Amino acid sequence: MNSAPPTSNHSNAETVALDREHVFHSWSAQGALNPMVLEGGLGCTVWDNERNEFLDFSSQLVNVNIGHQHPAVIAGIKTQADLMATVAPAHAIHIRGEAARKITAHTPAGMNRVFFTNGGADAIENAIRMARLHTGRDKIISRYRSYHGNTGSAIVATGDWRRIPNEYARAHVHVFGPYQYRSEFWADSPEQESERALHHLERTIQAEGSASIAAILLETIPGTAGVLIPPPGYLAGVRAIADKYGILVILDEVMAGFGRTGDWFAFDAFDITPDLIAFAKGVNSGYIPVGGVVISDEIAATFDERVFPGGLTYSGHPIGAASIVASITAMEDEGIIENAAMIGRDHIGPGLAALAEKHECIGEVRGRGVFWAMELVANRNTREPLSAADMGKLKGALVQRGLLPFIAENRIHVVPPAVVTPEEVARALAIYDEALGAL
Amino acid sequence: MNSAPPTSNHSNAETVALDREHVFHSWSAQGALNPMVLEGGLGCTVWDNERNEFLDFSSQLVNVNIGHQHPAVIAGIKTQADLMATVAPAHAIHIRGEAARKITAHTPAGMNRVFFTNGGADAIENAIRMARLHTGRDKIISRYRSYHGNTGSAIVATGDWRRIPNEYARAHVHVFGPYQYRSEFWADSPEQESERALHHLERTIQAEGSASIAAILLETIPGTAGVLIPPPGYLAGVRAIADKYGILVILDEVMAGFGRTGDWFAFDAFDITPDLIAFAKGVNSGYIPVGGVVISDEIAATFDERVFPGGLTYSGHPIGAASIVASITAMEDEGIIENAAMIGRDHIGPGLAALAEKHECIGEVRGRGVFWAMELVANRNTREPLSAADMGKLKGALVQRGLLPFIAENRIHVVPPAVVTPEEVARALAIYDEALGAL
Repeated sequence: MNSAPPTSNHSNAETVALDREHVFHSWSAQGALNPMVLEGGLGCTVWDNERNEFLDFSSQLVNVNIGHQHPAVIAGIKTQADLMATVAPAHAIHIRGEAARKITAHTPAGMNRVFFTNGGADAIENAIRMARLHTGRDKIISRYRSYHGNTGSAIVATGDWRRIPNEYARAHVHVFGPYQYRSEFWADSPEQESERALHHLERTIQAEGSASIAAILLETIPGTAGVLIPPPGYLAGVRAIADKYGILVILDEVMAGFGRTGDWFAFDAFDITPDLIAFAKGVNSGYIPVGGVVISDEIAATFDERVFPGGLTYSGHPIGAASIVASITAMEDEGIIENAAMIGRDHIGPGLAALAEKHECIGEVRGRGVFWAMELVANRNTREPLSAADMGKLKGALVQRGLLPFIAENRIHVVPPAVVTPEEVARALAIYDEALGAL
Repeated sequence: MNSAPPTSNHSNAETVALDREHVFHSWSAQGALNPMVLEGGLGCTVWDNERNEFLDFSSQLVNVNIGHQHPAVIAGIKTQADLMATVAPAHAIHIRGEAARKITAHTPAGMNRVFFTNGGADAIENAIRMARLHTGRDKIISRYRSYHGNTGSAIVATGDWRRIPNEYARAHVHVFGPYQYRSEFWADSPEQESERALHHLERTIQAEGSASIAAILLETIPGTAGVLIPPPGYLAGVRAIADKYGILVILDEVMAGFGRTGDWFAFDAFDITPDLIAFAKGVNSGYIPVGGVVISDEIAATFDERVFPGGLTYSGHPIGAASIVASITAMEDEGIIENAAMIGRDHIGPGLAALAEKHECIGEVRGRGVFWAMELVANRNTREPLSAADMGKLKGALVQRGLLPFIAENRIHVVPPAVVTPEEVARALAIYDEALGAL
């Protein structure tokens, strides 16, 4: 698979040395970092400067849904780069309109306008802004066990540890969501988990004062928090409660959208239509930094006469727009969404279930499409999470065997590109099997 | 100047229709928008779908310092797109290290680490985060008459109308800065304006409690607020006050940095060294959405053992990094910074002074490099701003004559790319002259 051109004369050690001298990394203590080097990729494979290859079952932070270096997307980027690399957001450029049209062709009826941002965090910021101004209300309800981005409001809407040192935004309220395996509601069944989570949500709304709440903000399927598939009735129940109290629903589809779940949007598989959709990542597989908000016609109309007080220099960036058009077209033409659905149903799902049969340390597997988690435990009865030390060993064992994993807390997330083949899944399953066996 | 290939079969009207159907625009009421169409550009010229050309004296939101479609930057983008379009921030990729090295080659000694973001707003968010965690303090002092971005903390640090509907972040304090033409300090000279602005800053710090203040955040030269050149001693005085109270200085160089002022950084011309520098725009002329924070070694060391609680999927994006490397290299090799300085000193400065001699409605001109403002007034004595209606007429007259202007409130900002030629400046000055005369 050495199809890439020679790209550097640098050893891995040289690249790491340069990185450690000048690059400050996300979400890390910087002192002990020893980053893996990457130089190129194709499809589900990546390689370092020294041509060591890895099967990318991380999708680079659950991002490259279309796989590495899809030729049509690269061509789209290069074509637009030759025409016009940048344009101010106040102007109109055709490719931006095309990108918005491509996106809204896959959203529910009545969602026809797109506000483009640079990524998921500022998509969330602007969705929150729209919800507040449309409703005239302040508070945003989101969930513990969620991640919504690293900027002012997005990070405080977040429900994991990353919120704690960053709590400088007001008017955020958190609730627990359904998570049967570690229920907060003493539930005995998915139906009961769903019903009780909805009760908890509605009671919180009442206790906060329903007229103070602008929106409920949810990852349709919480991602980094553990690929937490909503139990039956939960999302439909959220919509009903929101409607009852005049509250908007913002679905964060940054990680789950554009094929990850085997649907265009994760919510397509559930009984809910949002008012606002935040997207990024899969929309163009991160080939260019871009994100955005799809807006219901009703909310968009609020800003027909009234100035929308949000914006950014790179909103609707032409090269980003070109990468979106090329990516969505390729997904449509090449059956990439359908592939993700088939892979989840016929390969990853059954494969992980078989691993769980074999390895005592797998407490639960869950997911759909190319969006799965194995929850690892020290003890199946107590469900005590596998220790950080063991997770570290496991990560080393996977990388050593040529698989680039996505590890979060006590979980391995099985999140390859949506173009992954059955053969690649089989190779990955064999590596997971070996590494779990070696533990 | 029809050197671009034919790029679309769309009329301007078709592009506007598509835009109005699907694209939601920044900082606008959407109902009455009729955006100008752009399709291509080269150097200081842009054109629409129908090959109408305009001299770009806006630089697309004061962004394309290197001009439109610089061939070396386009080539850098395309080369990296062929190698690897995206990589997770946890990994190391050589081009990212190169971009950080290129940037820090132009920063003061002791500023060697770069945290990359997607744009200016999240650069500010992360600079604020670093300042708070490094000092263990909460409050950020910024100025009225400033703009720092549209996300949670950045928009509340902002000091213009855009903050008001977005005030959901806590621990922000605003002060007035020096602005001799409309002094808040009853000052008679630049020296007195400077001295009194510093007194006001220090008194605010004391009144807020100096031990509660993490950082003073300033645009080195406030941009959209009016290209407000700091008077003698002001920035040195800010540094001295910050040091006296153990407060950090964050300079927002998003608009002013990378050649706009005729220096690599605007602060190079003043007696101040910041602790953190936020950048975007000029670093790669926005060819790819990117921004970042340059971090002092002392602040970076805070996070050697301690996790930095911030990050984002596209941090250090490889195509963005490639565009930075190509852009800075071109600026170094082609004397682009020096050109901007020469243009300001020998052409725009004298040219605007001559216009001010001739046109009664020009109250003041100020600036340096390719970063200038003409402040327009209805009455030179009262300094009453020119009306919005007259500004609208002026804008129409400029566009009609083939100049794309940057208009803010009662000002025309004269902000061409840093590669602008004396001949292009002469053409623009003639157009400004005509349009002002027609008023």
